[in-house]
Amino acid sequence: MRLAALSAAIVPLASLQAEDGYDLWLRHAPLEGESLARLQAHDGEIVALNPDEPTVALAISELRAGLDGLLGKADRAAQTGSYTAFRFDCDHPAIAPGGAFRITPADRLLSIDAAEPVGCLYASYAILRELGQGADPSTLALDSAPAMPLRMLNHWDNPDGHVERGYAGRSIFDWWHLPERLDQRMIDYARANASVGINGVVVNNVNARAFMLEPRYIAKFARLADAWRPYGIRVYLSARFSAPMDIGGLTTSDPLDPQVAAWWRAKADEIYTAIPDFGGFLVKANSEGQPGPQDYSRTHADGANMLAEGLGDRGTVIWRAFVYSAEDETDRTKQAYAEFVPLDGQFADNVIVQVKNGPLDFQPREPFHPLFGAMPKTKLMFEGQITKEYLGFASHLAYLAPLWKEVLGADTGRGGPVTKSVAQVIAPAGMAGVANTGSDRDWTGSDFDQANWYAFGRLAWNPALSSESIAREWAAQTFTRDPQALGTITAMMQGSREAVVRYMTPLGLAHVMDTGHHYGPGPWVCDLARPDWNPCYYHRADGEGIGFDRTPAGSDALAQYAPDVTAQWADPATVDPRYLLWFHRVRWDRVMPSGRSLWADLVHEYDAGVAAVDALARDWQTLAPHIDAQRHRAVAENLAIQQVEARWWRNASLAYWQSLHGLPLPAGAAPIPESLADYQRRAFPEAPGQ
Amino acid sequence: MRLAALSAAIVPLASLQAEDGYDLWLRHAPLEGESLARLQAHDGEIVALNPDEPTVALAISELRAGLDGLLGKADRAAQTGSYTAFRFDCDHPAIAPGGAFRITPADRLLSIDAAEPVGCLYASYAILRELGQGADPSTLALDSAPAMPLRMLNHWDNPDGHVERGYAGRSIFDWWHLPERLDQRMIDYARANASVGINGVVVNNVNARAFMLEPRYIAKFARLADAWRPYGIRVYLSARFSAPMDIGGLTTSDPLDPQVAAWWRAKADEIYTAIPDFGGFLVKANSEGQPGPQDYSRTHADGANMLAEGLGDRGTVIWRAFVYSAEDETDRTKQAYAEFVPLDGQFADNVIVQVKNGPLDFQPREPFHPLFGAMPKTKLMFEGQITKEYLGFASHLAYLAPLWKEVLGADTGRGGPVTKSVAQVIAPAGMAGVANTGSDRDWTGSDFDQANWYAFGRLAWNPALSSESIAREWAAQTFTRDPQALGTITAMMQGSREAVVRYMTPLGLAHVMDTGHHYGPGPWVCDLARPDWNPCYYHRADGEGIGFDRTPAGSDALAQYAPDVTAQWADPATVDPRYLLWFHRVRWDRVMPSGRSLWADLVHEYDAGVAAVDALARDWQTLAPHIDAQRHRAVAENLAIQQVEARWWRNASLAYWQSLHGLPLPAGAAPIPESLADYQRRAFPEAPGQ
Repeated sequence: MRLAALSAAIVPLASLQAEDGYDLWLRHAPLEGESLARLQAHDGEIVALNPDEPTVALAISELRAGLDGLLGKADRAAQTGSYTAFRFDCDHPAIAPGGAFRITPADRLLSIDAAEPVGCLYASYAILRELGQGADPSTLALDSAPAMPLRMLNHWDNPDGHVERGYAGRSIFDWWHLPERLDQRMIDYARANASVGINGVVVNNVNARAFMLEPRYIAKFARLADAWRPYGIRVYLSARFSAPMDIGGLTTSDPLDPQVAAWWRAKADEIYTAIPDFGGFLVKANSEGQPGPQDYSRTHADGANMLAEGLGDRGTVIWRAFVYSAEDETDRTKQAYAEFVPLDGQFADNVIVQVKNGPLDFQPREPFHPLFGAMPKTKLMFEGQITKEYLGFASHLAYLAPLWKEVLGADTGRGGPVTKSVAQVIAPAGMAGVANTGSDRDWTGSDFDQANWYAFGRLAWNPALSSESIAREWAAQTFTRDPQALGTITAMMQGSREAVVRYMTPLGLAHVMDTGHHYGPGPWVCDLARPDWNPCYYHRADGEGIGFDRTPAGSDALAQYAPDVTAQWADPATVDPRYLLWFHRVRWDRVMPSGRSLWADLVHEYDAGVAAVDALARDWQTLAPHIDAQRHRAVAENLAIQQVEARWWRNASLAYWQSLHGLPLPAGAAPIPESLADYQRRAFPEAPGQ
Repeated sequence: MRLAALSAAIVPLASLQAEDGYDLWLRHAPLEGESLARLQAHDGEIVALNPDEPTVALAISELRAGLDGLLGKADRAAQTGSYTAFRFDCDHPAIAPGGAFRITPADRLLSIDAAEPVGCLYASYAILRELGQGADPSTLALDSAPAMPLRMLNHWDNPDGHVERGYAGRSIFDWWHLPERLDQRMIDYARANASVGINGVVVNNVNARAFMLEPRYIAKFARLADAWRPYGIRVYLSARFSAPMDIGGLTTSDPLDPQVAAWWRAKADEIYTAIPDFGGFLVKANSEGQPGPQDYSRTHADGANMLAEGLGDRGTVIWRAFVYSAEDETDRTKQAYAEFVPLDGQFADNVIVQVKNGPLDFQPREPFHPLFGAMPKTKLMFEGQITKEYLGFASHLAYLAPLWKEVLGADTGRGGPVTKSVAQVIAPAGMAGVANTGSDRDWTGSDFDQANWYAFGRLAWNPALSSESIAREWAAQTFTRDPQALGTITAMMQGSREAVVRYMTPLGLAHVMDTGHHYGPGPWVCDLARPDWNPCYYHRADGEGIGFDRTPAGSDALAQYAPDVTAQWADPATVDPRYLLWFHRVRWDRVMPSGRSLWADLVHEYDAGVAAVDALARDWQTLAPHIDAQRHRAVAENLAIQQVEARWWRNASLAYWQSLHGLPLPAGAAPIPESLADYQRRAFPEAPGQ
């Protein structure tokens, strides 16, 4: 009988123990080497002027816990230096209110000054972010202020736990057990938000249920608001415009009816009694079947202003500009502009109009929305989608900071002699991101999607940050501080969204996803009830060519932009090729700047997208020594899915375009392994997020 | 300027650091004192005959990891003794196959013998269970064998992630990303199951979707089967009987049609190619709208045997006896017996009929199902519900081992001169529990609901274990080893289900829950399409009395039991009061053994249930020093919900009974704070699990 000894698997390094991603970028993994020594030398007491104020207390305890993590203190009671190493003044007259802070290094002391406690809390997270990347505490100087007042998440979460366009499991909000039971996750969620400066949360879907305005739910919101208040986060609600009828017993929701206005004012009073710092209402009205003021021949301004009056100076109405009517036969991308620009100047002071980044619907790439800059007398807010409805759900790696930066940095061509960027247009209001959170242990359905939550918050705080720097600081806190590995991860992230654009919607194509769930390719879909729900409406491909003519010869959507912008995009010969088929209809045989035909260029784009995903998978394999096994495997498996699905996108799309024009694939292009019918037959009735 | 120092909160004891429940009963928290010293003295190498066999390797690594936890080794590479402390022989001829094991202590050596690797794995978990309670390794002797071959979980999980009657979030099965992505949770799930002896899992809802039998899904099941195989867990599928038509292109699903049989045989072959140890099919047929053989005037036996022939000796068909037809006007509780008893002897050898614990539907209390013992020529399996559809969802504390024990221990009055208990009847087959797992971090929606998963496995392994001992061993592994605290927790658990019975369905009442979601009281509901969906059908209350007459004067359901059993329950004067209103209609003014009227007794029961919940909440408060803050708060908040809802049950029920008979509350009874109309008005459209 052979008796062999088997030693249990030995994990080689403590830092590589399995992680499930729950801690997000707030892991505060132990420093090593010189940066550890520097922090050890600096470590000491944390003092504050008003340490018992709840947010100041949090600033201190968060900093202490983070420092202990970075110092690798297993025992949280371990000795720290007995001198003062961090000193908070959270009532400093020289700092602007609104969350700004200043960190000043002196001899073994960091002075942290802010005008308000929340500025101190933001400073604690900023210190940990810098130290977590190896910064030297003895020279750590920061002077930081938010670029815009509202930095918000919008949750498309339903009261039954379903998340519309959610790919990370069920809603994080446990309405069923609130208010009696407060999940620890609600605290950890607030920490994560505060750590990147997010200060407002709309907790329910814009496709809202009226019963969430009933007292039963107000008690639930109040418990959340109490839990989040120390983190500087205000609760907002999506309000269904017909609530006065749905739950109020009225026979109308006409915004000019005094009873309706009185109902909303009473409802606001009721909410403010429970939540003194309630943020306000987000409203999706007269869009995709939602009720709204147009049901009574009133304008969006009539509706918004009536709600705003109910809130008074206590809160804000955020009114979405994502509207398109079933009857309108014109280009769908033109409708928000057409409906809202005439209302400029009519909105109350406490109304913000929330505008999607592009004029269609969160595509992998769109030009910036023409409303930005076109309503100078109205506060406009940016709405981006953190969840990846159109970018491969949670399994495709697509780092979205480059997408948002592309829009935020766009010159609107409007705003005065010195024209304004989108970021400048929205600065008086803010940014809202449609959240990608869910019940999955990693919060976002994949490790890399955490970066999009992080980057959204960081850009809302400071749109001037580069995508690359945000990626690097996120990865250093989330995965590893090894410089070479960090370089690899950052480069992977930076190129990832462009890869998705290339294998899904190259050269300005849009909305060619399959119907309803938006999973996978469906360029052939052309039989839906409304024209503008069909992919064929957007690509307009036939045997001759492809693309949506939005020049004056076509829908003339181009005319909604400022003249300088229009000029950039008007000519198919000179337009940025990334927007070619968005604005122009182009013949398949047109010779492109590359010297190839459009068809050959398109094939090249799909193939480049596929190749980029293959490179992502290869690069990730090289990182195995630097990432714990659980997360390394999880990402690797996602990338394997993405490799398969990028090919699916390429092959199904090409098979369909070929069915229209009959052209052969360019020499050297990989053959298409299945027939168009095979691709068309695929069905995914259980696709998530619908 | 006052500068005050604030030290970060110091967690007093390592063992009380916040826990989120993910580790279930497999925490292996460090031992202390004498038991730690004893284990330290015993610790050493683990050797095995065949250490590379996957399950043996698991037995070793699980034991090693558990020991390291119990020993408090922070560093898993820390020194262990260099002599052999644990020796596995997993091919031992003297042990029975099927998972049995024998553990024999000798001088500083535990010998572990089993006939198969899975026996060794079960032994590892058994050793850790005992050591985790403080057992002395030098005297640890166990000789254990499973009481029944199939110990299964049934998941009512849909492919879209919704869990029917699930109260712990979303499904744990990530079908969307399988087979490419295997969530770590699938491994941790297998560990938890194996640790209590569960060896089969039906991964999809009995209300099955046919597309889950398509190749796309078979690949997903195969990845799970591969992951679970080392843990001794076989995959089973719920099969929709109409699949040959739904996805097979046939025009019939008639079980006697040769094409149908051939389709199922080919489907079985396809599955076995991917999953060589596939367990078989679970079928819900001709029940609540599901298709089945009766659609073709065939019997349940015709349907089951056709499927069984397709599986051949490779697998098992498990056919549910939970049937009741819309047309049948008789007592619903009689129908399973009526349909199945005539088929006794007609089922193939590889068919098992799965019977719910009671004849109705997982009520807080039912008498045992009359089919147990009544089909001596058929293998019968027990089906219990671990998820608490009718027992307060996840927020009410209700430890279910006493419920299952009540049924398992019931004497059927049948089976020969020495009559058989239900446990004896099912011994050749097994037990299935409808799982309570979900995406919540604590798996089951609450900490205490973990105990029901645990207890189900333990009872399936050995129905002779006492509820009390299972509660104690679970609590010691899950919460604390402090003897006094353990005593308190065990007593809380032991009385908890009876408390629910008393405030929901006292004295044999049943199915008085509100419609559809089964949340909260709805005894007044009497307007549903089918009579047997209505609470009023079950309680039959009016101004004169209450209860369902199942004696010969009524539905005579009593006649389905063996004569000795019938005799116990036939007389309202002598029947066990726990079954009084199940079998008898009783006048409100009947004088009960207590000397009170039935009405007064009923009020007394509700009040006793409420008082018991108040006691649970008080007892839990005393445990604060012994439980980490996160879990202590979570349980406390659940108990607060239960206190409110127990009163709601009491008050709404009493208000309704009063509306029928107009009698005053007995002297001293607490008044009913709201009107019946108020209780009837409550609506919960978003209630989970529907």
